[in-house]
Amino acid sequence: MAESTSMRLRLPLICIILEVILIILFGLLVEYNDDTHAKLWNANKTHSATRNDYENEFYYRYPSFQDVHVMIFVGFGFLMTFLQRYGFSSVGFNFLIAAFSLQWATLMQGFFHGLHHGKIHVGVTSMINADFCTGSVLISFGAVLGKTSPVQLLVMAIFEVTLFAINEFILVSLLGANDAGGSMTIHTFGAYFGLVVTRVLYRPNLDKSKHRNSSVYHSDLFAMIGTIYLWMFWPSFNSAITNYGDPQHRTAMNTYYSLAACTLATFAFSALVNPEGKLDMVHIQNAALAGGVAVGTAGEMMLTAFGSMIVGFLAGTISVLGYKYLTPVLESKLKIQDTCGIHNLHGMPGVLGAVVGAVTAALASPEEYGQGLQKVFGDVKTGDWDPQSKGGFQAISLAVTLGMALFGGLLTGFILKLPIYGAPPDTHCFEDGLYWEV
Amino acid sequence: MAESTSMRLRLPLICIILEVILIILFGLLVEYNDDTHAKLWNANKTHSATRNDYENEFYYRYPSFQDVHVMIFVGFGFLMTFLQRYGFSSVGFNFLIAAFSLQWATLMQGFFHGLHHGKIHVGVTSMINADFCTGSVLISFGAVLGKTSPVQLLVMAIFEVTLFAINEFILVSLLGANDAGGSMTIHTFGAYFGLVVTRVLYRPNLDKSKHRNSSVYHSDLFAMIGTIYLWMFWPSFNSAITNYGDPQHRTAMNTYYSLAACTLATFAFSALVNPEGKLDMVHIQNAALAGGVAVGTAGEMMLTAFGSMIVGFLAGTISVLGYKYLTPVLESKLKIQDTCGIHNLHGMPGVLGAVVGAVTAALASPEEYGQGLQKVFGDVKTGDWDPQSKGGFQAISLAVTLGMALFGGLLTGFILKLPIYGAPPDTHCFEDGLYWEV
Amino acid sequence: MAESTSMRLRLPLICIILEVILIILFGLLVEYNDDTHAKLWNANKTHSATRNDYENEFYYRYPSFQDVHVMIFVGFGFLMTFLQRYGFSSVGFNFLIAAFSLQWATLMQGFFHGLHHGKIHVGVTSMINADFCTGSVLISFGAVLGKTSPVQLLVMAIFEVTLFAINEFILVSLLGANDAGGSMTIHTFGAYFGLVVTRVLYRPNLDKSKHRNSSVYHSDLFAMIGTIYLWMFWPSFNSAITNYGDPQHRTAMNTYYSLAACTLATFAFSALVNPEGKLDMVHIQNAALAGGVAVGTAGEMMLTAFGSMIVGFLAGTISVLGYKYLTPVLESKLKIQDTCGIHNLHGMPGVLGAVVGAVTAALASPEEYGQGLQKVFGDVKTGDWDPQSKGGFQAISLAVTLGMALFGGLLTGFILKLPIYGAPPDTHCFEDGLYWEV
Repeated sequence: MAESTSMRLRLPLICIILEVILIILFGLLVEYNDDTHAKLWNANKTHSATRNDYENEFYYRYPSFQDVHVMIFVGFGFLMTFLQRYGFSSVGFNFLIAAFSLQWATLMQGFFHGLHHGKIHVGVTSMINADFCTGSVLISFGAVLGKTSPVQLLVMAIFEVTLFAINEFILVSLLGANDAGGSMTIHTFGAYFGLVVTRVLYRPNLDKSKHRNSSVYHSDLFAMIGTIYLWMFWPSFNSAITNYGDPQHRTAMNTYYSLAACTLATFAFSALVNPEGKLDMVHIQNAALAGGVAVGTAGEMMLTAFGSMIVGFLAGTISVLGYKYLTPVLESKLKIQDTCGIHNLHGMPGVLGAVVGAVTAALASPEEYGQGLQKVFGDVKTGDWDPQSKGGFQAISLAVTLGMALFGGLLTGFILKLPIYGAPPDTHCFEDGLYWEV
Repeated sequence: MAESTSMRLRLPLICIILEVILIILFGLLVEYNDDTHAKLWNANKTHSATRNDYENEFYYRYPSFQDVHVMIFVGFGFLMTFLQRYGFSSVGFNFLIAAFSLQWATLMQGFFHGLHHGKIHVGVTSMINADFCTGSVLISFGAVLGKTSPVQLLVMAIFEVTLFAINEFILVSLLGANDAGGSMTIHTFGAYFGLVVTRVLYRPNLDKSKHRNSSVYHSDLFAMIGTIYLWMFWPSFNSAITNYGDPQHRTAMNTYYSLAACTLATFAFSALVNPEGKLDMVHIQNAALAGGVAVGTAGEMMLTAFGSMIVGFLAGTISVLGYKYLTPVLESKLKIQDTCGIHNLHGMPGVLGAVVGAVTAALASPEEYGQGLQKVFGDVKTGDWDPQSKGGFQAISLAVTLGMALFGGLLTGFILKLPIYGAPPDTHCFEDGLYWEV
Repeated sequence: MAESTSMRLRLPLICIILEVILIILFGLLVEYNDDTHAKLWNANKTHSATRNDYENEFYYRYPSFQDVHVMIFVGFGFLMTFLQRYGFSSVGFNFLIAAFSLQWATLMQGFFHGLHHGKIHVGVTSMINADFCTGSVLISFGAVLGKTSPVQLLVMAIFEVTLFAINEFILVSLLGANDAGGSMTIHTFGAYFGLVVTRVLYRPNLDKSKHRNSSVYHSDLFAMIGTIYLWMFWPSFNSAITNYGDPQHRTAMNTYYSLAACTLATFAFSALVNPEGKLDMVHIQNAALAGGVAVGTAGEMMLTAFGSMIVGFLAGTISVLGYKYLTPVLESKLKIQDTCGIHNLHGMPGVLGAVVGAVTAALASPEEYGQGLQKVFGDVKTGDWDPQSKGGFQAISLAVTLGMALFGGLLTGFILKLPIYGAPPDTHCFEDGLYWEV
């Protein structure tokens, strides 16, 4: 067994090969954009009286980027430390696959979002987008947590990032969909992709590791570090790439209210579904975040605080109920072993967010948005915009996303099933000792 | 006992009822402000050459908001995890009552700070103010930590937020007081309110839970996460709602120096008051923060780094001495059981901050502030300003705050004494197992 | 023994004396700068149409400052909690010496960076610089961690801050060197200073405390909090004091890519050097950060993402190899007991960063930088600039830094050897119980 799960050669090989490929491709394809290039930025300044240093996109976006960055590395990383003996792997593998994914995503997204004379232009916005794509991979990681080797996770990331970029391209560039906070592109995609992967990797004898598939007191506190950071910075996440000015401001605020309402729903239903009325840390750690997922599409629209709170309350409710009633069924009937319950935190709330986004878009009007309409719905400018068809395209985007996730997860799952990655045996899942010096 | 403390129905009922009321009131009363409304922001832009997207208040305030947000949810939440078996409740109930309070505070503060044609206008500044008000509730939570049910805490928050908003209205709108960092409105109010509540809820037999009312090694490290975040972001807290430009910049810097000096005083006196010269984590976790509290009023004024450091040093000193000599007396003589020692961190330093603010205001002069005088003291514009009377109004504000806190705490304490909230018995205080699945 | 290590009088005395001296010197020497002074800032505004509140340096620098601040207090503090029974001291002494150093650094840097009519002007940039200097002291702390009393550490900080400021003055003001992220001034200086100090303080019988000089499961997770925060915010660190606009933007991005590549190298080599292919938390906690150190000089230049990734990959590689093969040799042959392995994280990567900076500067050209050249290389303006000599001065700067660090460390080491500071005996190193109530 020690032989078959050894990372001695497997992990160095894949890491070094991938990084060398990345470096070569970056050398061939990646260039500074107008705001990061010494010559271009300062040339712009000279030719135009209106470009001052304070208008560099850095000052609009970098604080949001850093909040997103914290969500990716601390938020996701620590959220998954709830398992009693899997903290090193949770934070560590999260770190590894995120560091890989953000580089690979820069290339894939740059390729699909439009090359400039054959080159990919990078700046803080591409950094945020790369972190977003990484988030999707980390969501899927939650489904297979404890049952995969780091090599498997890197292979998963290669495929998932690629398919994410294609799906994002279809939604944003072809269908003109709005999805600034990624209810569809990030959460729905990441969740169903991961669920299909874990279905394909189904382990009938996983109960051999059952005693380690639970938390202890301190591991739950470490996980709360992740939860709270995700919760606090979700307003930054949803608003990070919206247009400047009112949309960014509004998105952050809508998300803030959605999360607050979601938290009350989470506590309410967590106590209600427990025979003794005791709160369950699993719910608090996860369901309280569903409100951020569920306003990921509509957050930049004129959803209002009122609308955001309703959506958040619903999201928290379905998320707790999902953990209590749906997850066990998914495992026993559909053979979907979802370690972190991503279906409840990202899957259902992501779909809810997509639907809310479609409805809110369909209700948009020039009377309500005034000259701000074009800032939210880019296609106003091209004259193609009418609210009903917009709503329809949003709905189609959800369907496309689900299709891509299911297809992609299936393909990736079968690739991950090959017995070459050093996956843990059923008896040693959820155990740091397999891959770490402890 | 299990029956009488069950949250099965109590907690869902109060959470759902409160959230439904909040949603209805938000639907009726809350609107986007000029900087978050798609139509209004972009109409402003068209009519005025000087409003560009980078002038949206989002870019001035959102980074400060996020720092404040971290203080509220991570800072307060983890600071209270020092108890050995109360980490879930500390972080969890902090999360719950903060999520409720920020919504309720939006309404209460919006109501008292001035309606616009009967509507409450919201944006990032109202979000910061709501978080500030929430901070006050969390300070009071520190006094009753471990001895209250989540339902009791929500009821306390209902009343405390309301009275906070009234007190803030009296100070800021009627008396024209300066209190950007809340030495009075947040810290003094929250501390004395909480102390009176815990006095009314006095438990003569609390020593039955004495063995759990202390820390263990790792719980003290979790608490240091809270401490350090509060310490680092206090400059953002005090400067979050000051005027743009020099006041915001100056406030952050004054707070930075006050905290640094406070930290040295804390280590000095912590070692000095211990017979063996050993440092006490309780002091480091708490007293080192008193410097932030104590420049909460004067921080935006021309206090200078020199003045800030003197204030910080004093604050750290009285805070450590308070923990060592005053807290035991408060408990034995006055029957005030103050779990976190909020009197030492928020009470006395808050009063110190109010006094420093009054003196600094009384010493202000146009010679020193130049045309910046009006940015700090808004009443310069109205012609009502003269430094001595300004100092007097600051002192009156402290008295009003103390009165409101004592009256409010008394009222709220008696309401919380009703035997309907599922409060923990004396034998099961400071114990997560009562309300959580562990 | 208890007598000889008691902090009862030693610590209060040094803290109070130092803080009183600081307060007096601040009172005599420190003034608000143009952006923090009420009169000066608003006078500027009146006289010039182009100074608006949004141009206050606060809005350009404060978010970066807060990220740096988190690195100093959470990053360094928690990174060192990996020891099983030294968490209080790691976070606590880090807190103490950082709070002292930032005040002392304000004076020393202000003195050397140019007085204004005999006064030191302070604002957010001086706050960042003070935090930077503090970082250098904390690096040295890593070498002597567990083997020093808090009084010793404060004495070390007095000398190190002073010598840091002198070295920085020579590099930046006399030699005109570029070193925005401090590969030389912060990392190389702090590392070699600390290594020489720990060499002078060599303890031949340190193996008496060997059983405590290692981690336990949860202490490694606390340390990962430090690691991840350092990793995430390093882009802010390197870009915090670069010029506005493209240099700040570019530096953050270069650092982001360097760190990502470094992380893959770290995982690869950590598995490769272990006989069973198991990952070592020491490597992940430390070596993954070397990529940030290594682009500390060249990050603001047109290094490109491609170049940054190569540098990051190299830095991670040498850092892991250093931990595995060099650290044991340093201890056994050179008698350098380096608790945290700062030579691998700050020493070698710092030197690498200096070399990369010299080469990148030597390759700079007006064709590549356009009008942005002067923003990166200030001496373009004075006409003294030519790329080859620039590269030469960068190389000389490295040599000066190494010399200053070795000389300063030697001097400070011998001062710290005096038997008056209450240093821990060989049998009680790496033990909180000596200085803390546990």
